[in-house]
Amino acid sequence: MTLTEIGQRAKEASFAIGKLEADEKNQGLLAAAEALLARKADILAANERDIDAARKKGMPEGLVDRLLLTPERITGIVEGMHQVASLDDPVGEVISMKKRPNGLLIGQKRVPMGVVGIIYEARPNVTADAFALCFKAGNAAVLRGGSDALESNQAITRALRAGLLKAGIPADAVQLLADTNRETAREFMRLNRYLDVLIPRGGAGLIKTVVENSTVPVIETGTGNCHIYVDESADFNMALDILFNAKTQRIGVCNACESVLVHEKIAKDFLPLMKKRLDEKQVEIRADAASRAVVGEFKEATEEDWGKEYLDYILSCKVVGSVDEAIAHINRYNTGHSEAIITKDYANAQQFLNEVDAAAVYVNASTRFTDGFEFGFGAEIGISTQKLHARGPMGLLALTSTKFIVYGNGQIR
Amino acid sequence: MTLTEIGQRAKEASFAIGKLEADEKNQGLLAAAEALLARKADILAANERDIDAARKKGMPEGLVDRLLLTPERITGIVEGMHQVASLDDPVGEVISMKKRPNGLLIGQKRVPMGVVGIIYEARPNVTADAFALCFKAGNAAVLRGGSDALESNQAITRALRAGLLKAGIPADAVQLLADTNRETAREFMRLNRYLDVLIPRGGAGLIKTVVENSTVPVIETGTGNCHIYVDESADFNMALDILFNAKTQRIGVCNACESVLVHEKIAKDFLPLMKKRLDEKQVEIRADAASRAVVGEFKEATEEDWGKEYLDYILSCKVVGSVDEAIAHINRYNTGHSEAIITKDYANAQQFLNEVDAAAVYVNASTRFTDGFEFGFGAEIGISTQKLHARGPMGLLALTSTKFIVYGNGQIR
Repeated sequence: MTLTEIGQRAKEASFAIGKLEADEKNQGLLAAAEALLARKADILAANERDIDAARKKGMPEGLVDRLLLTPERITGIVEGMHQVASLDDPVGEVISMKKRPNGLLIGQKRVPMGVVGIIYEARPNVTADAFALCFKAGNAAVLRGGSDALESNQAITRALRAGLLKAGIPADAVQLLADTNRETAREFMRLNRYLDVLIPRGGAGLIKTVVENSTVPVIETGTGNCHIYVDESADFNMALDILFNAKTQRIGVCNACESVLVHEKIAKDFLPLMKKRLDEKQVEIRADAASRAVVGEFKEATEEDWGKEYLDYILSCKVVGSVDEAIAHINRYNTGHSEAIITKDYANAQQFLNEVDAAAVYVNASTRFTDGFEFGFGAEIGISTQKLHARGPMGLLALTSTKFIVYGNGQIR
Repeated sequence: MTLTEIGQRAKEASFAIGKLEADEKNQGLLAAAEALLARKADILAANERDIDAARKKGMPEGLVDRLLLTPERITGIVEGMHQVASLDDPVGEVISMKKRPNGLLIGQKRVPMGVVGIIYEARPNVTADAFALCFKAGNAAVLRGGSDALESNQAITRALRAGLLKAGIPADAVQLLADTNRETAREFMRLNRYLDVLIPRGGAGLIKTVVENSTVPVIETGTGNCHIYVDESADFNMALDILFNAKTQRIGVCNACESVLVHEKIAKDFLPLMKKRLDEKQVEIRADAASRAVVGEFKEATEEDWGKEYLDYILSCKVVGSVDEAIAHINRYNTGHSEAIITKDYANAQQFLNEVDAAAVYVNASTRFTDGFEFGFGAEIGISTQKLHARGPMGLLALTSTKFIVYGNGQIR
C-alpha cells in the first residue's frame, strides 16, 4: 500500500471514529485488548523472530530487553488498554459558549485531532499504548515503529484490527507502516494532506530527525537536562533525599536530575553530605572549581557538562551566588523539561516558579514526578518540551483539538 | 547582525518581558504608540520611498494600496495598539490547581511563548499590529516583512523601539530582519534554538513556503475554501442574504464563501433566485450538470473548481442529495476554515456542526464572521487552519503557552 493510500484510509477512518460515542470507543478498546490476549501465542512467536534477528546482528542487551515481549508484558499492555478505556472521554465537551452583541452564540468544542502519526523505536509495547490513547481521543493512528520490532508490531496491529472489526469499528483506526526504510519515513513526515500531527517517541536522535524533516506539525517530546537548585535556606535532609531520588531512582529517564546547583553560603556544609549520599550509588560528580575547592575528589566539569543529559550515574555540580544566578544558569542550559528548587524561602520559591522556563517547575519535590500518571492524567503519550499546543506530560487532552460552533438566526456582516 | 545574534537578543528580551506586569506592558504599548505618532513624518517619508520603488518596478495598484501608509492609516495603527493595551492580560492565570494523593499541589499556569517569529508580506501595518499582540502576551517578536516594505517597516520598528526604551523596556522586544533575501528567510525558519513559534501571515504561497521549510513549530494561517450548504428546509430569504453577504461583502478574504451546495429538492426553486441575487454583483457561477439543468446560463464547473479559493466574484455550485452528501463533499474539498449550513431542521443542524471538519462551523449565519474581532477576542494575529495549538481566529491566548507549577514538601518517588 502506498503512503497516500494509507493516509486516505486513515482520514476516512478518522471521520467514522470521530463520530463514535465514548461507550462505543470503550467497547472497541476492550475488544482490541481481548484480541491481543487471544493472539498472545502469535505475538510472542513474532517477537521471538525479532529477538533472534536482533541478537544475531549484535544488538546490545539493554535494547533487546526493550524489544522483548513476555506473557506478563502482554498482560501489562492489556491492563494499560483497560485503564485507557476507564478514562473520561475528552471529546465533545463544549469548553465555552458566549453570546455576541449581534445574537450569534459562539462556542468552542473539543474534537479529535483526526489522524495522528507516531514514529517510535523498537519498543513493541508502544504500538498498543499509542493506538489506545489516539483511539480513545477519537483519532485514527498511523504507526511507524522501529524496523527491529516489525514482526512484533505487525502481529500486535493485526490483533488490534481484528478486535476493532469484531466491535464493528473500522480496522483502519490503526495502521502500521510495513515499510520501515528511511526514505519512506521521510515521506511519511511530509504527508501533510492526511496527517494532522506527528509525535516522535524515542531518543534525541529520532526526535531531531523528525523535527528537521517533518512538514506535518510535530509535538516534540524532548530530552531532559533537569536541575535541582539547593537554596541557601534549604532543609539539608530534604535536599539530600530529593537529589538522591531524582538522580538515582531511575537513571535512564528524561525527568532524572542531571545537574545540581548549590548556593555558595551552604556549599561548604552541603557538598560533603551530598557526596556521601550519592556515593551509595557511586554517582560520579563533575564539578566547577568552587565545588572542587570544597570536595577535592569531584571531577572537573567542562563547559559541555552543563548542557549534558547523562542518563547515567553522573551529575554535574556548580556553586551559585544567588537564586538569580541559578535561574539564569538553568534558563541557559536546560532543555525545558523539569526543574526544582529546594528552599524554605517564600520569595525564592515564587521567583523560581515564575522565572524558570520549563514544562514543569517544582518547589521541594523530585523532578521524577513529571509523568502523566503522577500528574493524574491516567496515561501519557509523551512529555512535550515545546511550547506549542501541549507542554509537559501529555494525556488524552493533548490528542484533541477544538472547533468553533456558531449558532445564528440569519446574521450577516 | 547575524540571525544568531538577533535570536540571542530576542531570547534575552523575552525573559525580561515575561516578568513584566500587565500595567508595565500597557505603558510600553502606549509609549510605543506615542512614538509612532511622534515619528509619523519619518514613517510616511520612508513609506513614500517604498511606494516609489514599487511603482517603478510595476507593482499592481492593489498591492501598492496594501503597502501604502497615510496619516489616517497610522492613526488606525495607533488606535489598534491602544485597543490591545485595553485587553486583559492572559499571562499568569493559573488555569487549574489540583492536589495529588501524595500531597503535591500541581497547577497549570499561563506563560508567554517566549520568542515569536512573524513572516509577512509587504503590509507595513502588520509590523505594529504583530508587535503589539506578541508584546501584550509577554513575548519578544522577531519580524520578517516583505522586501518591498523594508523602509516603512524599519521606520516603524525604530519608532516602536524608541517608545519601549522610553518606558524602560528592552528595545529588543521587537526586532526586524534588515536582510530580506530568501536565503536568510530560510535560515530564519530553522532558528529553533531561539524561536518558540513561527507564524506566517500572507497568501497561500508564503504559507506553503514556511510550512515546507520551517523546523520551528509553525501555526498555519491558511486559505479558505468556504462552503454554504442550503438545506432542503432552508428559509430562502435567509439563505439568499447570507450567501450574498458571504460571497460579495468582501471578496479577497479567507472567510468569503467560494462554493454553494444546494439540496436537490429545492434546486429548481432556489437556483434561479440565487442567480438573480448574485447577478447584482455579476458573480460568475461555475456549476455541476444538475445545477445547469435548472439554470442553463451557469458555466460548467471542472473538478478543479471544487477545491478552488477564488478570492473573486466567482462561486462554484453543486446540487447534493442529502446533508450527508453535503458534509462528505465539504470534508473532501474544504481547507478547514469556515463552513455554514442554512436550515430549519434541528437534526441536520446538529449533524452539520458535529461532522464538518473545520475551524468554524455555522448554522444560519455568514462565514464572514470568522474573525478575532467578531468572535470577541478584541484583536487577532491570524486565523489558524491547523489543529495543533490554536484553531480558528487567534487572539492573545494563542500567543501563550503553559507551564506546570508544582508545590511540594519533600515528595520523592
